[in-house]
Amino acid sequence: MTIPLSQRALHELACHFLDEDVGAGDVTTLATIPEQAQGRGRLLAKATLVLAGLDVARAVFQAADGAVRLQNHVQDGAWLAPGTVFAELEGTARALLTAERVALNLLQRLSGIATLTRRYVETVQHTNVRIVDTRKTTPGLRLLEKYAVRVGGGFNHRFGLADGVLIKDNHIAMVGSLTKAVALVRASVSHLHKIEVEVDTLAQLEEALTAGVDAILLDNMTPEQTHDAVQRVRAAPGGESILLETSGGVTLESVRHYAEAGVDLISSGALTHSAAAVDISLELDVAV
Amino acid sequence: MTIPLSQRALHELACHFLDEDVGAGDVTTLATIPEQAQGRGRLLAKATLVLAGLDVARAVFQAADGAVRLQNHVQDGAWLAPGTVFAELEGTARALLTAERVALNLLQRLSGIATLTRRYVETVQHTNVRIVDTRKTTPGLRLLEKYAVRVGGGFNHRFGLADGVLIKDNHIAMVGSLTKAVALVRASVSHLHKIEVEVDTLAQLEEALTAGVDAILLDNMTPEQTHDAVQRVRAAPGGESILLETSGGVTLESVRHYAEAGVDLISSGALTHSAAAVDISLELDVAV
Amino acid sequence: MTIPLSQRALHELACHFLDEDVGAGDVTTLATIPEQAQGRGRLLAKATLVLAGLDVARAVFQAADGAVRLQNHVQDGAWLAPGTVFAELEGTARALLTAERVALNLLQRLSGIATLTRRYVETVQHTNVRIVDTRKTTPGLRLLEKYAVRVGGGFNHRFGLADGVLIKDNHIAMVGSLTKAVALVRASVSHLHKIEVEVDTLAQLEEALTAGVDAILLDNMTPEQTHDAVQRVRAAPGGESILLETSGGVTLESVRHYAEAGVDLISSGALTHSAAAVDISLELDVAV
Amino acid sequence: MTIPLSQRALHELACHFLDEDVGAGDVTTLATIPEQAQGRGRLLAKATLVLAGLDVARAVFQAADGAVRLQNHVQDGAWLAPGTVFAELEGTARALLTAERVALNLLQRLSGIATLTRRYVETVQHTNVRIVDTRKTTPGLRLLEKYAVRVGGGFNHRFGLADGVLIKDNHIAMVGSLTKAVALVRASVSHLHKIEVEVDTLAQLEEALTAGVDAILLDNMTPEQTHDAVQRVRAAPGGESILLETSGGVTLESVRHYAEAGVDLISSGALTHSAAAVDISLELDVAV
Amino acid sequence: MTIPLSQRALHELACHFLDEDVGAGDVTTLATIPEQAQGRGRLLAKATLVLAGLDVARAVFQAADGAVRLQNHVQDGAWLAPGTVFAELEGTARALLTAERVALNLLQRLSGIATLTRRYVETVQHTNVRIVDTRKTTPGLRLLEKYAVRVGGGFNHRFGLADGVLIKDNHIAMVGSLTKAVALVRASVSHLHKIEVEVDTLAQLEEALTAGVDAILLDNMTPEQTHDAVQRVRAAPGGESILLETSGGVTLESVRHYAEAGVDLISSGALTHSAAAVDISLELDVAV
Amino acid sequence: MTIPLSQRALHELACHFLDEDVGAGDVTTLATIPEQAQGRGRLLAKATLVLAGLDVARAVFQAADGAVRLQNHVQDGAWLAPGTVFAELEGTARALLTAERVALNLLQRLSGIATLTRRYVETVQHTNVRIVDTRKTTPGLRLLEKYAVRVGGGFNHRFGLADGVLIKDNHIAMVGSLTKAVALVRASVSHLHKIEVEVDTLAQLEEALTAGVDAILLDNMTPEQTHDAVQRVRAAPGGESILLETSGGVTLESVRHYAEAGVDLISSGALTHSAAAVDISLELDVAV
Repeated sequence: MTIPLSQRALHELACHFLDEDVGAGDVTTLATIPEQAQGRGRLLAKATLVLAGLDVARAVFQAADGAVRLQNHVQDGAWLAPGTVFAELEGTARALLTAERVALNLLQRLSGIATLTRRYVETVQHTNVRIVDTRKTTPGLRLLEKYAVRVGGGFNHRFGLADGVLIKDNHIAMVGSLTKAVALVRASVSHLHKIEVEVDTLAQLEEALTAGVDAILLDNMTPEQTHDAVQRVRAAPGGESILLETSGGVTLESVRHYAEAGVDLISSGALTHSAAAVDISLELDVAV
Repeated sequence: MTIPLSQRALHELACHFLDEDVGAGDVTTLATIPEQAQGRGRLLAKATLVLAGLDVARAVFQAADGAVRLQNHVQDGAWLAPGTVFAELEGTARALLTAERVALNLLQRLSGIATLTRRYVETVQHTNVRIVDTRKTTPGLRLLEKYAVRVGGGFNHRFGLADGVLIKDNHIAMVGSLTKAVALVRASVSHLHKIEVEVDTLAQLEEALTAGVDAILLDNMTPEQTHDAVQRVRAAPGGESILLETSGGVTLESVRHYAEAGVDLISSGALTHSAAAVDISLELDVAV
Repeated sequence: MTIPLSQRALHELACHFLDEDVGAGDVTTLATIPEQAQGRGRLLAKATLVLAGLDVARAVFQAADGAVRLQNHVQDGAWLAPGTVFAELEGTARALLTAERVALNLLQRLSGIATLTRRYVETVQHTNVRIVDTRKTTPGLRLLEKYAVRVGGGFNHRFGLADGVLIKDNHIAMVGSLTKAVALVRASVSHLHKIEVEVDTLAQLEEALTAGVDAILLDNMTPEQTHDAVQRVRAAPGGESILLETSGGVTLESVRHYAEAGVDLISSGALTHSAAAVDISLELDVAV
Repeated sequence: MTIPLSQRALHELACHFLDEDVGAGDVTTLATIPEQAQGRGRLLAKATLVLAGLDVARAVFQAADGAVRLQNHVQDGAWLAPGTVFAELEGTARALLTAERVALNLLQRLSGIATLTRRYVETVQHTNVRIVDTRKTTPGLRLLEKYAVRVGGGFNHRFGLADGVLIKDNHIAMVGSLTKAVALVRASVSHLHKIEVEVDTLAQLEEALTAGVDAILLDNMTPEQTHDAVQRVRAAPGGESILLETSGGVTLESVRHYAEAGVDLISSGALTHSAAAVDISLELDVAV
Repeated sequence: MTIPLSQRALHELACHFLDEDVGAGDVTTLATIPEQAQGRGRLLAKATLVLAGLDVARAVFQAADGAVRLQNHVQDGAWLAPGTVFAELEGTARALLTAERVALNLLQRLSGIATLTRRYVETVQHTNVRIVDTRKTTPGLRLLEKYAVRVGGGFNHRFGLADGVLIKDNHIAMVGSLTKAVALVRASVSHLHKIEVEVDTLAQLEEALTAGVDAILLDNMTPEQTHDAVQRVRAAPGGESILLETSGGVTLESVRHYAEAGVDLISSGALTHSAAAVDISLELDVAV
Repeated sequence: MTIPLSQRALHELACHFLDEDVGAGDVTTLATIPEQAQGRGRLLAKATLVLAGLDVARAVFQAADGAVRLQNHVQDGAWLAPGTVFAELEGTARALLTAERVALNLLQRLSGIATLTRRYVETVQHTNVRIVDTRKTTPGLRLLEKYAVRVGGGFNHRFGLADGVLIKDNHIAMVGSLTKAVALVRASVSHLHKIEVEVDTLAQLEEALTAGVDAILLDNMTPEQTHDAVQRVRAAPGGESILLETSGGVTLESVRHYAEAGVDLISSGALTHSAAAVDISLELDVAV
């Protein structure tokens, strides 16, 4: 699992986040800790969680001081029990103290997303459905949050508006009809992009089948409605190869029912916009 | 209530967030919607919430097209009932469609924080306690999230490591003693900064009182322990003017008990790191 | 036809290009032309060409002075005869003089690409083939050059490595086999992306058909080999819906033969990496 | 021959170009190639060319992964025969695959410019004339393209509007007379800058001689007219030390005649705006 | 003494300053000095001065070439006699020559500030007064100039408008009264910030004492007036703990009198806005 | 007199400087002044000075709020008597208060440079000598400081290392001889750049005359030595047209003697590195 950021881009992001917190200097640490003092630390899980963000945390500490070393004992994606020490740090005491908060803020958020995603994934693992994210990510953190979803076992939907076609209700309303919207898109879209359309009703579903799309997003349907829609599509000519996605109101409780309704993908904005931070802390040792 | 960002800085932030989502272009919208088509939209609450982020949302739409107009019917800080239309939009259909997601992502997050903060504030409004945030904000969004806390009726703790002194357990551990840490800070700190120290035990509390600090953070204490600590401080010479803050494990259920224990400030990381997004949506009209 | 750049991004790009040329100031113009002097100018084609880049040129002049007006008489995409005045300019004489070169450099390059593309497109207009570009664009100018290709009537291949899958010879060589490469991609790729694979031989073509891809790039084949390959694919089960692209050594002379061989797409790096600038000039009037 | 860019500026430029192509990640390579896989490659000329851009190519590969090594066998400026391997690469397979296209785009363009320049230079090497470039470079690539001209044996005209004075027809038209323009410039110009003026006619040439300039650009004259103009200037008092430049419509066929007409410099925009890319490719080996 | 800038931020600042001077290349050095030539240099004081800026100078030379080594013989803060060699340089001759001016510009300015500050500090060392700077720093250099003040033995007032409260005459005039201004600030200010108010008259001083502030800035008073004001404050209830600062028209001649008047802090804009550069030079050796 | 910065570049510089001071917000002003309150202000000279920086100050206030209006009564370059109101401001009270310090910092510095330069210029106005600046400017402010020199009546030497050739002692030492250094430069320098060489002795002066340079910098000579050197050069063949510059140790007292010694240019680093700030203040009115 790789963060799709160059070393330099990750470093710059880490510096940007650290700058936001440190500004004109960590006055408490500068006043109390000598420049040469060395420190050691242990990162530990304080709850049950799927870890995500080790490389990000390392980048943050190294943004504070390039000589900090972060040695991880596990990889991103591991389930950790409360109390597990998953990495050790070594470097100047100042860097460890100054970067601690930003590193933890990121680890806790990304691990929160990975943990929530993993729960969804495990709930539907008896099916072939893919759990996918949405564009409902925190502004500025999309690549990292989508990475955390993959760490959790999920898949990524579009990274942005440029790398995929999804015709939504508002497009259809403005163009006048789903059929016309599909035709317009087909005339200009890259030959490497599939066309997905969002449908709210069975009538729209029929129209989508006729218009000839590659994927259909079933929006805000109950598991039962979803089941019916799936049957309808699979029975249509060419319907076997159409990808079916469901979205809207899926919860950890209901996700199994959607999965068993036969869709290919279940997308959820909550994976990224409402995952609570999970508890991770840093224990520091007196300098040697 | 003002976002502490210049017009230009807010515009740049909005552009940065929009770029993350739009990249090389919103292929679906460009293919379906003519360049000149105009649209109208209504932003509406789909849950009970305290609104926060109107200026941010406006900046995002105007980052897509400077001519978009967002007319708000209420101000940030208002309690909204589900179904309330709180703003209307007018502009090119393309700009409305392309900026929708980023604007909603921000509105939902900031309103989520304001709503949670307001609940804490209302719970303790019979006391003089201030609900304050922490540095546990989303990297890249600190100023906006701290603004949302103020919109919710809370107050801001430090904006970063440079604008206040907080001597924490790790500083004390590395320096050797609380007394020594306070002395080091006093020798170099700006005369406009107060000195706050985090204490975990009554012994540390006594040491802090002797060392002569301006504020004390009571970390991870129960309401009862907090009550005792408050009594202790108030009874000490000069203790009346020392600010007392409690932090750690405060919840909507327990916050009243901490407030009634007599502290001046209650800080909570959950206000920013674990507030769930609240539901807000944009309804768009067919272009006229 | 819209440049997929926000107003602000286009403005910033224009400023960046202008800064490169102007640096610490246009010493000749500053010394000779008074600050208040106004000027008028006419942009004219000095060769037969397809115009591309009006909005870019406008952005460059306005980067020099926001009050410059560029009034165009035609739209991007028009065939112009030598001597045609296609736009008029009005603004401070200093801005017109200082921005002239950068604006012309861009207009000449983009129109050169549009003109060459249009010649390809017109040559194959009796078929359904799409002329498409490649990633062989000038570093820093990809969005603008791909826009010029569309202005010329061509289509765009991938905008970059993130928005489409193309398995090339080097991927296959490193993975060990085309079949394995396709399987690896299928397991992780976004459900909205099709899978295209480059093949050099008929054996690889067969392997691609078996592996089940969405599109096949026939690399460096003669028109005859291309014709055979097309027949082969169309005769295979499911082969009707596979997109066929040819690339490598296509020229204005040979393009017709490739088109008639039955492929869906013909891609050419020369459209962007070797289109010569076309002659466009700016005539300025004495200030009134 | 040195690129006038600091290591860091070259690195940043390389990163900027790579980002343009890679965006949110090279999906094909990430899916097919393991993170640890190593690769080797050979850069080879596929046409007769003057090589330019080795340091730029190295910077691009190292922007993808700082550990990539590019070992060159020749230096920029060497004439290469088709088939010549001029450099070898070693590094992670992912970095080699991901950076390949951008590196080749730059090498092909810069070598194209160097090759064309060299042909001009060799054509006039029996004279003392300097072949010089113009400001008709690709926006964003000026320093690199002017470097390629020097690699080809040419010289650089102004790097931008700030580092030299060239009074052009439009300046003269706006000011009212060449004489007045020269006087205005002389009153403010840095004492280290010479004054060059563009003339289209013999009358202007006489006026320039009287006004007392350091260099004269003979614009759009035939070789015969150029010869006459040279004679005129050399015969004038002080005319021996005036630099004479010719520009406009110079081709590989006509350049010898201009050179023999006795000018000091021949400038050509085509060196940079219309040099076709030369063919260079990268062969990659299966990882060991 | 540490510059409150990360290694990277200092490097970027150095690159920014170097770029301003070097632009498209140091044409003199590139023409005369071979790329491989090595050089050595000695930085020496040419006047009596307090040295400040060693790390900044090192960063500038390393911005030109990362391999340059600067070995310092003393630390920032040392008093140097004229002729003292305080550091030695080793690196490519080009880097040493190209970065020389920018490095010296910074060393001379920062040492000028440190030297002037030290003179003030030594003048009042028989008292407990702190010499503090102001916000009258050079735009773009605040962190460095405030560092130089600390090197000189001074203390820093606010780093900017966000990290401290200072109610000035213009605030009071606009709000209507000092009392009202203090009340407004108290209602919103961070609990970690003290409140300082500027007073011009004894009446305002009384109002400030009544309003209950943490610090008082006595603006533009004579030493005698200052003495009276100090007595007044110290005699008031709670007045012992109020910090007293004097500012305005303090000179090296008068500073002793202000200090002896009993204030806690003396601030001076001249420390940063009018300190003359001190003479430092770089001697370079022929390459070995 | 024009600042050689585009509107946008000046705006960005102003924003950068304002951000440095304002950071996360002007807490005092935000707490005391309502968002809608309007203010008026008067900028006035508090000493005798040559004004410089009106456009810069305007840009700073407008960076705080684009609607602020600054109406100037005089132009940059005017001599002002103490007490002169030279501009009036109107805008939101918050913007005026928040931007005040940065605007004054710039006005005071630039006017300080213009004033000092003017004194030099007026002292030598009975001669034809040009007072010129050096590269000893404040890092980050070069363009503005060089503008202030021109406002003062001075001229600009090189803007940086790229726009002019100046062979200095260190170049000569490293190359081996002045003659060789001149030859190396001549072989590569742009035909629009003159060649200047620094000489310390009469022997070097002779060598420079023989080598054939365009300008000679007489370094650290007394007025008498300068006089002798001028005579020597003027008597040499071609010496009439060689530009002579003197530098080093020139003061307001000695400048007349250097000027009368017959040089063409007198350069002084003190104009920019040691000009003290001149006193300018802003008076604000209660909002109406």
